[in-house]
Amino acid sequence: MVTMQNYLAIDAGGTSTRAVLVMASGDCLGYGVSGGGNPVSRGFDGAVDAQLRASATALGGSDAPLHSVTVAMAGASLELPVGLFRERFAALGLLQDVVIESDLLGTFYSGSHQDDGYALIAGTGAVAARVAGSQLAAVADGTGWLLGDNGAGFWLGREVVRAVAAALDGREQATALTELLLAELAITADRSLRTQGRVGAQQQLIAKTYGLAPIELSRFAPLVFEAVDDAVARDIIDRAAAALARTLLAVTTGREDGPLVFGGSVLTKGGTVAAAVMAELALHAPAGSTGAVPVLVRDGVVGAAVLALKRHGVVVDAAVFGRITSSLAALRD
Amino acid sequence: MVTMQNYLAIDAGGTSTRAVLVMASGDCLGYGVSGGGNPVSRGFDGAVDAQLRASATALGGSDAPLHSVTVAMAGASLELPVGLFRERFAALGLLQDVVIESDLLGTFYSGSHQDDGYALIAGTGAVAARVAGSQLAAVADGTGWLLGDNGAGFWLGREVVRAVAAALDGREQATALTELLLAELAITADRSLRTQGRVGAQQQLIAKTYGLAPIELSRFAPLVFEAVDDAVARDIIDRAAAALARTLLAVTTGREDGPLVFGGSVLTKGGTVAAAVMAELALHAPAGSTGAVPVLVRDGVVGAAVLALKRHGVVVDAAVFGRITSSLAALRD
Repeated sequence: MVTMQNYLAIDAGGTSTRAVLVMASGDCLGYGVSGGGNPVSRGFDGAVDAQLRASATALGGSDAPLHSVTVAMAGASLELPVGLFRERFAALGLLQDVVIESDLLGTFYSGSHQDDGYALIAGTGAVAARVAGSQLAAVADGTGWLLGDNGAGFWLGREVVRAVAAALDGREQATALTELLLAELAITADRSLRTQGRVGAQQQLIAKTYGLAPIELSRFAPLVFEAVDDAVARDIIDRAAAALARTLLAVTTGREDGPLVFGGSVLTKGGTVAAAVMAELALHAPAGSTGAVPVLVRDGVVGAAVLALKRHGVVVDAAVFGRITSSLAALRD
Repeated sequence: MVTMQNYLAIDAGGTSTRAVLVMASGDCLGYGVSGGGNPVSRGFDGAVDAQLRASATALGGSDAPLHSVTVAMAGASLELPVGLFRERFAALGLLQDVVIESDLLGTFYSGSHQDDGYALIAGTGAVAARVAGSQLAAVADGTGWLLGDNGAGFWLGREVVRAVAAALDGREQATALTELLLAELAITADRSLRTQGRVGAQQQLIAKTYGLAPIELSRFAPLVFEAVDDAVARDIIDRAAAALARTLLAVTTGREDGPLVFGGSVLTKGGTVAAAVMAELALHAPAGSTGAVPVLVRDGVVGAAVLALKRHGVVVDAAVFGRITSSLAALRD
């Protein structure tokens, strides 16, 4: 089915939101960005506000007929008030049907147009998914900072702070992470001076880190890559990679093959963790499964466009997929 | 120096507070209990209220002259408003000097009257101290739930929840902890049914645990002892013991000998963790140090009484210490 109408696709993330206006041919006509658009972290109204702002930019005043609105976002499996989404979008003159899809599918389809394969995402959180027949067949981790998200941004930042706290009072070995973290937090106390038995720098570290919301520890994750030659930092990276490989292996069947898509800053920036994950997988993965070179994607907006077409009967083959990625790349530059 | 006056000693903990009226001879005359009396967790006014309630019970209407008030509590190394303590105690007719001491010394002196040795405490938090010349010479860990407290109650509870979350989606092996935790949280969802790829019981586990304050995860710590024959539970206990042993070893010098005092429910209830810590120490401790059988203490009130006497020039020898423990035990029964 080919239509001359355009499709609005939205990738609503926790810290930023992207919208794209795409034709059935795969050609993208407009692109817009806004702040966090996820109802789990931003609340319903704030999330839809951000989605509408990005959409308005993507539409760019176009009055060409619109086929539908497709939103890829975390929490799609929760019972969302789809009717309320529709009302809010109607206020922008978008009277079309609103389809909510999982952010995991958005990430997967940002790297592949095929309907079976795997996605592993490690940003602030960590989650793996097996996609089968264009649906989520299995999901592992993604259980949040307190219960899991092993190997992702918060996990890394927390390991940095714990390693430094333990190095300061001699429970664990000295690490280059100490200099980096204390500088980051502007802690200047003497590291050998003890007051009532307690190391001064550690006392300040406690005061400063408990002044943050727990999830903010993720800002210290990049320090492990700055100190990559340090044994403690390297151990944190290796444990993160092992955890992420376990998360991916939990959704693999050993029978199915398919593309492997990596998303999230921990996997896509620098490449250290991605390479370590692939090394882990080579040790443990059943032959033939997930052995492919992973496709790294920066976000889920390509996948949102793919879903916007696929969910409305448009066949997305390699040619259409290629037009989405190349025309969107031109709009984003 | 012996005086016929009595000393008021208070052990102000995070969840309960104990006060004792003790003579220079070591004989205890009165004992009182109240709720959390620690200013760090309860705020200044709430903490002093609790301390005064326990004190009133301990004094029992006695109008015998009082020498001084000694409070052992966490946060003693912080800059506390000692003048305000004095004002509040004066309102109870207690015009005496108020001395603030560390809860670590309170625990240590609950197990020994000597002035050199070691204390390891694992309750909700975990901390080790070396005592030298009646002062804190070195303190390790005690860095709170986010930065450390490795092997203590929160740490154990968090490991339980993480192990179950990982077992539910196949990242880690099955464990008997799953039954126990899901029953504790009244989660009845099918453990094999997936909705949008996600295991239903895991989705409920996420919803219920994020509804708690993080520190409340410590309530799941006892489950590891219920499931002690389970390999996953045993691994958590062994890792807790290894972490606690490292914390203690961080304050040991290898040169000094002295009594070893264990406090906190994780070490004193059941004995599983205490035995595992001693096994770890036997592997790693320098010969001669901390090799003694640990003295287990249930709280810090005996030590508060010891400190009340020692800090005011009363010699606490084995006989005085014995009178404190035996007369206090009689009052507590």
